[in-house]
Amino acid sequence: VIEVGSLRIAVVGTGLMGASVALGAARLGAHVRGYDVDAAALEEAVRRGAVHTPCTSLADAVEGVDVALVATPVASLPGVVAVVLGESDDACTVTDVGSTKATVCAAAASPRFVGGHPVCGSEAHGAAHASADLFDGATWFLTPVAETDPARYRLVHGLVSALRAQPVAIEPDAHDALVAITSHLPHALANLVVNQAGTARIAGHDPLAAAGGSLRDLSRVAGANPRVWVDIFLDNREALLSVLAEHRLGVERLEAALSSADAREIGDWIEEAAGNRRRVLRAAYAADPGDLFRVRIHVPDEPGVLARVTQALGAERLNIEDFELHHLSPERGGVLGILVSGEGEAERAAQLLEALGYGVVVAPVAAGP
Amino acid sequence: VIEVGSLRIAVVGTGLMGASVALGAARLGAHVRGYDVDAAALEEAVRRGAVHTPCTSLADAVEGVDVALVATPVASLPGVVAVVLGESDDACTVTDVGSTKATVCAAAASPRFVGGHPVCGSEAHGAAHASADLFDGATWFLTPVAETDPARYRLVHGLVSALRAQPVAIEPDAHDALVAITSHLPHALANLVVNQAGTARIAGHDPLAAAGGSLRDLSRVAGANPRVWVDIFLDNREALLSVLAEHRLGVERLEAALSSADAREIGDWIEEAAGNRRRVLRAAYAADPGDLFRVRIHVPDEPGVLARVTQALGAERLNIEDFELHHLSPERGGVLGILVSGEGEAERAAQLLEALGYGVVVAPVAAGP
Repeated sequence: VIEVGSLRIAVVGTGLMGASVALGAARLGAHVRGYDVDAAALEEAVRRGAVHTPCTSLADAVEGVDVALVATPVASLPGVVAVVLGESDDACTVTDVGSTKATVCAAAASPRFVGGHPVCGSEAHGAAHASADLFDGATWFLTPVAETDPARYRLVHGLVSALRAQPVAIEPDAHDALVAITSHLPHALANLVVNQAGTARIAGHDPLAAAGGSLRDLSRVAGANPRVWVDIFLDNREALLSVLAEHRLGVERLEAALSSADAREIGDWIEEAAGNRRRVLRAAYAADPGDLFRVRIHVPDEPGVLARVTQALGAERLNIEDFELHHLSPERGGVLGILVSGEGEAERAAQLLEALGYGVVVAPVAAGP
Repeated sequence: VIEVGSLRIAVVGTGLMGASVALGAARLGAHVRGYDVDAAALEEAVRRGAVHTPCTSLADAVEGVDVALVATPVASLPGVVAVVLGESDDACTVTDVGSTKATVCAAAASPRFVGGHPVCGSEAHGAAHASADLFDGATWFLTPVAETDPARYRLVHGLVSALRAQPVAIEPDAHDALVAITSHLPHALANLVVNQAGTARIAGHDPLAAAGGSLRDLSRVAGANPRVWVDIFLDNREALLSVLAEHRLGVERLEAALSSADAREIGDWIEEAAGNRRRVLRAAYAADPGDLFRVRIHVPDEPGVLARVTQALGAERLNIEDFELHHLSPERGGVLGILVSGEGEAERAAQLLEALGYGVVVAPVAAGP
């Protein structure tokens, strides 16, 4: 176990991520030195209590520290990490929080460097929105390579765990290939689809305003912070290009199947997707996907509905996996959905909600295998 | 206002949708006759109290009714609607609940036919899962054409409203173009992406198991009921092919921008997506998207958390737009997110949750314009 409270930490780049790490480390008793090229950003981090010792130079910030964490924009990471490695002495372990890992790890090429990537998207930026709890429960990829000093890896692993994140070790190239498909492709498709829907005008109907559940789900990550995402897309462009090319081939195969009205092929393709959807659910819920049921009610737009429902469910100690209330509009109220494991639990939930006077719809989450 | 209680209704096809309409109409006092080619499906609808008078022939079912609602699979609709129009007398208004509208409306070509499409996806099927509340708050597209008898349209409009759905009139072709982009494209992309992620193996890491928020959101509609969706994709293949071709061009443009590392173009593309995302939010929340904030906490996997949080929020009468609790795992607990309108409300929510001992992260939902 790492005693974070006894560490001296330097945070280079005191925006949202850097200041959040600083706040978390400071809460654990660490002494935090800070540096940012933007004096106002550094001042804000000091004001927030994230940085104890603001420094006017990078060299000053990293002097005598145990860990230097680099939290500057992705495009600047190779350069800044190299400078930090150069300016700090051998006792200093260097890590970063960049969303891509191959470029920075290759550039660092030092036993003292351990690449890192906390997965916790946020539209906020700046130390003003920093939180010691930003990483609570989040996956935090660590990308040690062959030359990485194991003791340095253990130190960063311990720091990340102390910030209540879940460290996951992976090779830098594998990391970038993994996030290309789990994160960068979905972000790219979200942007593509909202822009396509945004330019389409269908007999006076705006597709964006008519967006149902599926387009709304898809669009959630559309237009994410360009300051961050231009860098990510460009730095990971090789992996993303490969994933996009494969996606385009998939689109072309679907177009061919549609053109020839090949019901068999389209059916097989949907069945394959159903199987993959079950794998996503199995990983997310540690339950048999066939046992997952969604219990849905329509609720009026009035105060107290949420508390009334959750109190009733809580009193019965129902095993709720997910709980969602989506507001439609003041006129149309909202939709409340509860994901439960087991048909018996679904029935109990339905009976409870019916007793409260709601009309209930129960449906399995995944079609059978 | 239509007195649904005085109507005689025939439901042709007593699966989930037909039986749900039947249950809703029966609850309002209507007399429901029913027919299904599958005798067991019809029996189940009778057992559920959805159908009062089961019939052994379609002609028998539609005899003397005011409204005949056809709820058979999409591919069968043109044929079945034609038979229903032929077997019923002039007093009978005919409607359907198919997810595509151009084909069936063109085939019907009758002043007595009013096409309909209730938007309420469900993985359930069969009368066993039917609910009179399935349409509560849902959009229900109606597709009258030039030859449609206005009185018939008012009748179907009244029936739909009485089932608590929101009728939205639109031309059949416009309907199919609209759902191609708001529903069929997102469904197709969900299938394509989970299948791509499902076949990728990255140094032992399964992208589906590592699926973060964006892939999980995107995959929600993947693998939806093939019995239903093969028909939908094929029937609307012209509109879907056009939307897919445009999507493929967008992918190619993105690939070109990435290949030439065109930061300006990628930045503009993300900014456009951010603007379109704000339009989605504006339509969904009737609030200035810049005023929407997400308040997020990490919660342990223990009973009572949900009730404790909602009681505290309810007591303060916070104006909550959306409320989500997503379970991560027994070890990692869950993430609770609350969408509120107004920075002041976000601060109040944060203070409340901090007082309960939770670490809180507050962030705007949409980046500024």
